[in-house]
Amino acid sequence: EEKEQVEIKPPKEKRKVGITETALRDAHQSIMATRLRTKDMLPVAELMDEVGYHSLEVWGGATFDACMRFLDEDPWQRLRELRKRFKKTKLQMLLRGQNLVGYRHYADDVVREFVKRAVSNGLDIIRVFDALNDLRNMEVAADQIKKEGCHLQMCISYTISPVHSLESFAKLSLEMKGMGADSICIKDMAGLLSPVDAFNLVKAIKERTSLPVQVHCHYTSGMASMAYFAALEAGADVVDCAISPLAMGTSQPATEAIVAALKGGDLDTGIDLKKLVPVAEHFKKVKEENRNLVMGIEGVDVNVLIYQIPGGMYSNLVSQLKEQNALDKLQDVLEEVPKVRKEMGYPPLVTPTSQIVGTQATLNVLTGKRWKIVPKEVKNYFLGFYGRPPGEMDEDIKKIVIGDDKPIESRPGEILEPELEKAREVIKPWMVEPEDVLSYVLFPAVAKDFLIRKYARATKRDVGFEEALEGVAYPV
Amino acid sequence: EEKEQVEIKPPKEKRKVGITETALRDAHQSIMATRLRTKDMLPVAELMDEVGYHSLEVWGGATFDACMRFLDEDPWQRLRELRKRFKKTKLQMLLRGQNLVGYRHYADDVVREFVKRAVSNGLDIIRVFDALNDLRNMEVAADQIKKEGCHLQMCISYTISPVHSLESFAKLSLEMKGMGADSICIKDMAGLLSPVDAFNLVKAIKERTSLPVQVHCHYTSGMASMAYFAALEAGADVVDCAISPLAMGTSQPATEAIVAALKGGDLDTGIDLKKLVPVAEHFKKVKEENRNLVMGIEGVDVNVLIYQIPGGMYSNLVSQLKEQNALDKLQDVLEEVPKVRKEMGYPPLVTPTSQIVGTQATLNVLTGKRWKIVPKEVKNYFLGFYGRPPGEMDEDIKKIVIGDDKPIESRPGEILEPELEKAREVIKPWMVEPEDVLSYVLFPAVAKDFLIRKYARATKRDVGFEEALEGVAYPV
Ligand SMILES: [Co+2]
Ligand SMILES: [Co+2]
Repeated sequence: EEKEQVEIKPPKEKRKVGITETALRDAHQSIMATRLRTKDMLPVAELMDEVGYHSLEVWGGATFDACMRFLDEDPWQRLRELRKRFKKTKLQMLLRGQNLVGYRHYADDVVREFVKRAVSNGLDIIRVFDALNDLRNMEVAADQIKKEGCHLQMCISYTISPVHSLESFAKLSLEMKGMGADSICIKDMAGLLSPVDAFNLVKAIKERTSLPVQVHCHYTSGMASMAYFAALEAGADVVDCAISPLAMGTSQPATEAIVAALKGGDLDTGIDLKKLVPVAEHFKKVKEENRNLVMGIEGVDVNVLIYQIPGGMYSNLVSQLKEQNALDKLQDVLEEVPKVRKEMGYPPLVTPTSQIVGTQATLNVLTGKRWKIVPKEVKNYFLGFYGRPPGEMDEDIKKIVIGDDKPIESRPGEILEPELEKAREVIKPWMVEPEDVLSYVLFPAVAKDFLIRKYARATKRDVGFEEALEGVAYPV
Repeated sequence: EEKEQVEIKPPKEKRKVGITETALRDAHQSIMATRLRTKDMLPVAELMDEVGYHSLEVWGGATFDACMRFLDEDPWQRLRELRKRFKKTKLQMLLRGQNLVGYRHYADDVVREFVKRAVSNGLDIIRVFDALNDLRNMEVAADQIKKEGCHLQMCISYTISPVHSLESFAKLSLEMKGMGADSICIKDMAGLLSPVDAFNLVKAIKERTSLPVQVHCHYTSGMASMAYFAALEAGADVVDCAISPLAMGTSQPATEAIVAALKGGDLDTGIDLKKLVPVAEHFKKVKEENRNLVMGIEGVDVNVLIYQIPGGMYSNLVSQLKEQNALDKLQDVLEEVPKVRKEMGYPPLVTPTSQIVGTQATLNVLTGKRWKIVPKEVKNYFLGFYGRPPGEMDEDIKKIVIGDDKPIESRPGEILEPELEKAREVIKPWMVEPEDVLSYVLFPAVAKDFLIRKYARATKRDVGFEEALEGVAYPV
């Protein structure tokens, strides 16, 4: 009798995949020198809130510094303004582990206070990475993010080397799960991730951790959209995209292209292309208004594919050599980079390791003798102040570089004295709100100038931050 | 006993896939207004011949016209110069069916003579398409290509409409096989092909015909590299790419990105990335030298995705409306296009149908009354002079447009009188070689000026074509 029932086929279940829009952080950092102002963002915020993104990346990376340094803007205030307008959409930031949003390791008290304030000012998701994939550099931040009840996304900084493998990355992701990670992000800052590797890596991480996996690629080598497509086929949950005027080149794949590409298949972004049109139009206008800031990097950078050197690092090498009138040595330097990287234990090439490796390789070639001149940063690297490299450092080179100095074995953040109290004393006279002390610790020189102006605006004019934002305080 | 043998796993067999490089034809047509000169190509020819491409697209499309019109170059001579240098690599061209490399239908005697000369001057593969996918417009060319012993590749002009489906395209490909096609090309001139559709379409054509399938996409919508990846997964044999400086935007995906993307997977292009570096460097230099010719279309064109209107057609509509001071009517026109296209039987939007549909849609909006003004081309379309549309034309509209005139039922090429003899008479005084008569028939006004100069150079200076090419005759 049961068999006589008509079999009704259920409609094919589509798997839901998410899009994180990076227009307000990584995209403009990558192609407009991090110069988008809050007033370039707010007019389109309500429209973006209706799109149905998984989340928006809006804070962290270089934006904190750039706000104060170039735009006379308070990064905290930007976050609050955005939070106010994004009522439905999750907001996320990029945190450089113990480096937070700066360029050195900060003491643990700073890390904990920063995370606390970041969450209380409106973030839903914090993505944490470390240039060396040294989990100890993410430990304190991760612990505090969990304490604040925020979504902890931990990053694998993707790279290619003899000591990095599917297995090593999968193992790393499992350790991240052990640290409380709510999701894993594959961070391909250089555009090295091929679709073949993306498929295998996502599969391995999924099998090992069962956690949601998000993929973050830059288009530099031209493979990013293919990597996304393969990653999603392998089970990835979310991919990072940028609205078309701020996409491609050194930025992310275009949101519209990824949404359209998945239409009619087994995956559903839940996004209506038509809702992206006014968003694209807005940023097209903003881009036109700021033509002079748009960097000329379009298309595909072959160097990424041949030398596995990120686009930014390559152009740095070129300009360093030009300054020395030694551009004819470029090929030698390009061939020296992998040697130095090997001797340093195969660090992924991302800020700050890309600068460290690149500078040493250039010096090795220009001085005519390898490791003859060694900058302080390179010495600190060999001393363990940046953390533990993925592979073994060359012992002979290490001896040449550090001499009789003793490398640290501990977590780099552990040896730093607390910094907050002292900083509070310094800025007491012109402190407006508790976040100011963090701005100061992170970028003392820049913040001092900025905070004095902020104090003057807040007191003399007796206006709230909100009005200040839209008034004279933020001249165009 | 057999079971006791040690099982030796054979190394995993990789499937060989080919790359057709379009730098010398479609890529520069798409992003440099077809302005590459033969002397921009020759210095890198020997290096390109070593890469291991499946083939190079070097001729046809708009290049024939552009050679004579803008570059004072003989297209036939270009082909011979390239052939001389490409000793290992197959050369191919794009032929617009009965339109050859021009913009109207030519008589059958012209079609046959053109194909004959194209093959005898050095082509290995001829790709034929028709804007309406009307096989009758490819019939004579296909027949002659087979007679010449040349590889016949027949194109499906890809589009999206209620009368186009996986099934209809697969059926078309089978009919092409019946006409002798050696391979099938999916020609996605507008960048509409999503990876999901690419996968299904390739699979359907492969199953139906067992012929090699080549995919040709433009990057306009940002989906092309994903479409290639999915098409190759489905069994496609060759994809069209452009070396990075001439890639992306309205051109093809970058060769380097596709080669790198497939590395380590089941597909093997057999191409060493390092061999592409000097090719990329050469065209980067050429592009820099011709900055003024590079069209500013980068990134992703959302209109392709929303309105399914090719990038070039969209910008044409905008400039037409600007001329009329009616840019505020753009939205109305964009919404009128699909209506007109429906009434015309859903032609794919490619030269010349994109211009025909776009102009009529604009007129319908600007005059305030639909089909009030009808240009000659639109009338000819309804009369059947362009061929048979994929769907049914609207009978009421047809009546309005053609009145009492009688549409033709036959193959459009059939009603044209032979053209060669008359043309030979005209150019007799300054004919240098038999190919000249074809240049004249195709573009009488342009060719007349050009051929007179060619005759003068060939006789007065008494130099062979080869020397002329590198000497005074082709001033920089
Ligand atoms: Co990034
Ligand atoms: Co094309």
